[in-house]
Amino acid sequence: MKKVGIVMGSDSDMEVMSKAAGVLESFGIPYEMHIYSAHRTPAETARFAEEAIGKDFGVIIAGAGMAAALAGVLAGHTVIPIIGVPLKSSVLDGVDALLSTVMMPPGIPVACVAINGSKNAAYLAAEILAVSDPELQEKLKADREKMKNTVLEKDRKLNEE
Amino acid sequence: MKKVGIVMGSDSDMEVMSKAAGVLESFGIPYEMHIYSAHRTPAETARFAEEAIGKDFGVIIAGAGMAAALAGVLAGHTVIPIIGVPLKSSVLDGVDALLSTVMMPPGIPVACVAINGSKNAAYLAAEILAVSDPELQEKLKADREKMKNTVLEKDRKLNEE
Amino acid sequence: MKKVGIVMGSDSDMEVMSKAAGVLESFGIPYEMHIYSAHRTPAETARFAEEAIGKDFGVIIAGAGMAAALAGVLAGHTVIPIIGVPLKSSVLDGVDALLSTVMMPPGIPVACVAINGSKNAAYLAAEILAVSDPELQEKLKADREKMKNTVLEKDRKLNEE
Amino acid sequence: MKKVGIVMGSDSDMEVMSKAAGVLESFGIPYEMHIYSAHRTPAETARFAEEAIGKDFGVIIAGAGMAAALAGVLAGHTVIPIIGVPLKSSVLDGVDALLSTVMMPPGIPVACVAINGSKNAAYLAAEILAVSDPELQEKLKADREKMKNTVLEKDRKLNEE
Amino acid sequence: MKKVGIVMGSDSDMEVMSKAAGVLESFGIPYEMHIYSAHRTPAETARFAEEAIGKDFGVIIAGAGMAAALAGVLAGHTVIPIIGVPLKSSVLDGVDALLSTVMMPPGIPVACVAINGSKNAAYLAAEILAVSDPELQEKLKADREKMKNTVLEKDRKLNEE
Amino acid sequence: MKKVGIVMGSDSDMEVMSKAAGVLESFGIPYEMHIYSAHRTPAETARFAEEAIGKDFGVIIAGAGMAAALAGVLAGHTVIPIIGVPLKSSVLDGVDALLSTVMMPPGIPVACVAINGSKNAAYLAAEILAVSDPELQEKLKADREKMKNTVLEKDRKLNEE
Amino acid sequence: MKKVGIVMGSDSDMEVMSKAAGVLESFGIPYEMHIYSAHRTPAETARFAEEAIGKDFGVIIAGAGMAAALAGVLAGHTVIPIIGVPLKSSVLDGVDALLSTVMMPPGIPVACVAINGSKNAAYLAAEILAVSDPELQEKLKADREKMKNTVLEKDRKLNEE
Amino acid sequence: MKKVGIVMGSDSDMEVMSKAAGVLESFGIPYEMHIYSAHRTPAETARFAEEAIGKDFGVIIAGAGMAAALAGVLAGHTVIPIIGVPLKSSVLDGVDALLSTVMMPPGIPVACVAINGSKNAAYLAAEILAVSDPELQEKLKADREKMKNTVLEKDRKLNEE
Repeated sequence: MKKVGIVMGSDSDMEVMSKAAGVLESFGIPYEMHIYSAHRTPAETARFAEEAIGKDFGVIIAGAGMAAALAGVLAGHTVIPIIGVPLKSSVLDGVDALLSTVMMPPGIPVACVAINGSKNAAYLAAEILAVSDPELQEKLKADREKMKNTVLEKDRKLNEE
Repeated sequence: MKKVGIVMGSDSDMEVMSKAAGVLESFGIPYEMHIYSAHRTPAETARFAEEAIGKDFGVIIAGAGMAAALAGVLAGHTVIPIIGVPLKSSVLDGVDALLSTVMMPPGIPVACVAINGSKNAAYLAAEILAVSDPELQEKLKADREKMKNTVLEKDRKLNEE
Repeated sequence: MKKVGIVMGSDSDMEVMSKAAGVLESFGIPYEMHIYSAHRTPAETARFAEEAIGKDFGVIIAGAGMAAALAGVLAGHTVIPIIGVPLKSSVLDGVDALLSTVMMPPGIPVACVAINGSKNAAYLAAEILAVSDPELQEKLKADREKMKNTVLEKDRKLNEE
Repeated sequence: MKKVGIVMGSDSDMEVMSKAAGVLESFGIPYEMHIYSAHRTPAETARFAEEAIGKDFGVIIAGAGMAAALAGVLAGHTVIPIIGVPLKSSVLDGVDALLSTVMMPPGIPVACVAINGSKNAAYLAAEILAVSDPELQEKLKADREKMKNTVLEKDRKLNEE
Repeated sequence: MKKVGIVMGSDSDMEVMSKAAGVLESFGIPYEMHIYSAHRTPAETARFAEEAIGKDFGVIIAGAGMAAALAGVLAGHTVIPIIGVPLKSSVLDGVDALLSTVMMPPGIPVACVAINGSKNAAYLAAEILAVSDPELQEKLKADREKMKNTVLEKDRKLNEE
Repeated sequence: MKKVGIVMGSDSDMEVMSKAAGVLESFGIPYEMHIYSAHRTPAETARFAEEAIGKDFGVIIAGAGMAAALAGVLAGHTVIPIIGVPLKSSVLDGVDALLSTVMMPPGIPVACVAINGSKNAAYLAAEILAVSDPELQEKLKADREKMKNTVLEKDRKLNEE
Repeated sequence: MKKVGIVMGSDSDMEVMSKAAGVLESFGIPYEMHIYSAHRTPAETARFAEEAIGKDFGVIIAGAGMAAALAGVLAGHTVIPIIGVPLKSSVLDGVDALLSTVMMPPGIPVACVAINGSKNAAYLAAEILAVSDPELQEKLKADREKMKNTVLEKDRKLNEE
Repeated sequence: MKKVGIVMGSDSDMEVMSKAAGVLESFGIPYEMHIYSAHRTPAETARFAEEAIGKDFGVIIAGAGMAAALAGVLAGHTVIPIIGVPLKSSVLDGVDALLSTVMMPPGIPVACVAINGSKNAAYLAAEILAVSDPELQEKLKADREKMKNTVLEKDRKLNEE
């Protein structure tokens, strides 16, 4: 199975981004985690993206806040899918990161998820890898079934009270 | 190769969404186009998503405006990647559709692109299919190279004047 | 008297949504409370709305946060009035839920109240049921009178000090 | 059958608000149309709402732009359901009217629809009257069926080409 | 000297609005404080504004949150200047109240100050009364002088350190 | 009677700001119109405000777009009431000018009206001068009566059709 | 004198960005204009910034729209001042570009000007070069004087009419 | 070396603005700190800017919140570069200050940094002074190298765990 890269702009993003790792682990998907900044380590960021295909990455998840250029910059250096996670920082509630991540120009796509949506970034990565992996697809279906049952169980309890 | 589904909430979305079809054609990716509304044809929308894997769809692109529930509703009925295109309508410049598309709850991901970003939805779909298709990946790389050269050519002309 | 359905997307919405139940109880209006998610339990959500008329529901109140599709999805499966309560979540102050709830396309209406406005959702449900129930309408008038007197009493106290 | 009142703050709102009248007519629902301004004719606005129940109005639709106080002011003078239509004016795309209409304080509800959503205001009024009118409810169901078929017909044509 | 009216929509607004009273006291301006809600006590609100000129009010300050109709409604019932104070409530940071207060239609003006700007509402009221009261104008000038000196004193201390 | 100053940041603001002059003329209020920019002619702007009381100005109306500092800067140089008109420019629909005008710090008030609300700025100026001018106050009341009758006449015509 | 670089993400930005060139020419400041995209030509963009000091550039002006990464990416590759011009594109009025340009993380500054503010970008570049160039500083002062006189002349004409 | 001026509108801004001083100190750049308010001490603010060149200031950093006129007013009185720091205050998350600072009219530029971005204001000031100071430019490059290594070190540690 191809690997997933999880890149974040700063180690202060770890609390949110580690949730992506948790989801990937639950599906048995191999991943690598890196701290690279589009602005502070541009060369390393570019190199990571350029070498991603050769190193057998299938998808890259990129989390960044403020003028969040990370996902877009990675996208500019590779043709594997880049999933952007806009992160909330101390002002603006993540709107700056959302717009910086989602409003990409034609030709260089980023798959943007919700503000602080690191879990869904991992779910999306899993769905992408599962396109050619029926076994993983079955795991995803089972997880959905479980999610559904958790909700229905809560509804049942509420109405038994 | 797996097919791409292009779904839109109304035929008035065709002008924007047909650009996705154009990009897919340029890469030789098979696709099917549908008009299904999350609110007006909920049963057909649900059925399309539920049957998508069996009908050999690999990715679905969903374009909708206003309270754009389409991408999210499709995502709730399948585990193949759903790409959401928030469409600009007569007020609010597409911000309503952007937030309705991107702010998905944990477990049900949507890959959101820019407002009216139908071209990038197709590029992203191509990148997703290319994860397990080296030939398509080469086509994507070639397209990037072409894009780059177009920019550099314009820069050259500007500086020859 | 017809029943009111109170549906919420997650049990974490209970704190806000239980206030709707409190208001309904104060008017002696029967209600049923459910946890159904437009994205995680789409089939059960659809079924609840489809069976609502047959089960003697007169109005449904739906509370959801983020890309709040719940009210709209319920509205797509029934012609009884759906009242949407956009819920504030951890980012964006509920603006995402507000736009996802209120910006419905023509033909499928949702009656949207304020962000976290669960009390007013119940008041509105009561007003709707009261259209054909003069006794309930009198109760609503009495409640208004009481509200008015509470304000005037506070004004009086303030000016006696 | 109870009547629907359609009130607008200015005759310049007629173009948008007359669409509500069109929908009501298609369902055979009686209505009355008025121009009353919360700010310029406050006494007449208040009187209209106070006398609404006695004059056999079942619902009032109120359309206003900018600091759209109309729906809220009507709601403060009656306990029949008030449906607010925030209207787009020359700046701010109707966001001012949306927030002025939807963010009502507890106890005085307004049922807000989309910016310029006059059609849905009428659909919602019809749904409210239909709560106690099975015949009207059947008409609404038939209209939904028609809407659905229009979409599916378009989808069919698109795929026959 | 004419009186200033300070009206607020709810006693929960007292903490912010009492600062207006403090400023008026510091200038020796008589004032009266009231709790009237545009939505819950519309008749009393209207009457207060209609009788304001006769009761020798020169200016009215109105503070309200959410769909803040109070200042506009008062303005619709009198031709003395109404100063609106948009109040921050639990969501949206007061943007709803700001737009509901400031975006008044032509002919019915409201003098809007900053969100939670109750102090400036009182300063503005004082400036308005001072237009025909040279003595009060001198007091305002002296206050400005004091404000200026406070800033310059802080600058001096900072640079002595 | 005291004069009203109408100041605008650029002659391109004349189209909107001349409407303020029109309203003042209709009430027989003397006024003077100036083009002064807070950024391009700061000294003249300051001097105009400083000399305003001596030159018998009672109120100043200031219209500016973008980072609209004009009203605030005038307010910093005088204690007569400053009315700010935020002007819409080529981007942002006047939101920049609104916030730059209304969010003044404590002690230096600006009376902000709606975006492009030059007419209401003049109405407000008239109301301020009328606080000590019963004759002008009567004119304002008559104008209100006329406004009211215009609305009611339109309502009557609509219902005669 | 050091050169100014004017870089834009696409040749469609030329109409706005050429105004920067016009201002620089009026001050006799040498400049070079380039089309480089942070996303489509990342390597060339990086190289341009890295070589900028060696090629005697003193300042770089970067104009880009949407998820405008250009200014930030240039800033990440050089320590000469980067001036960012957020460009308005077909949706969102340039707010996306503004936030993507201005919200830079600590250590990598961008000097952001107004949306479409290409003229001010050139003025700022001139001011920066003038810090060590008294002659250029005199030219800037003369230009200010001219600007001031243009405004005052317009004011004079207005008051002669 | 030329001095940097750090001006703030109120001493409550010191906590954020002192970080600018810290950065300047780390580069050995002389600076002076002042509390001047565009609205409360307009004359002193103007004088400071007018005398800045004569007193050997090379750049001025101005931090202010709300209707943040400070940077723009300083810019109107001098032709040395003014760097604006929009400060977050109790409401609106600094958006008011951002727009008031960045949306300057043509001819009077302000170099705006991020909300609360006082550190970057100092970095930008250093970069501006370094345009004609190769030694300072080397220090800036060394600082960048250090920043980069800090990130890479964190990445290394993360992957050794």
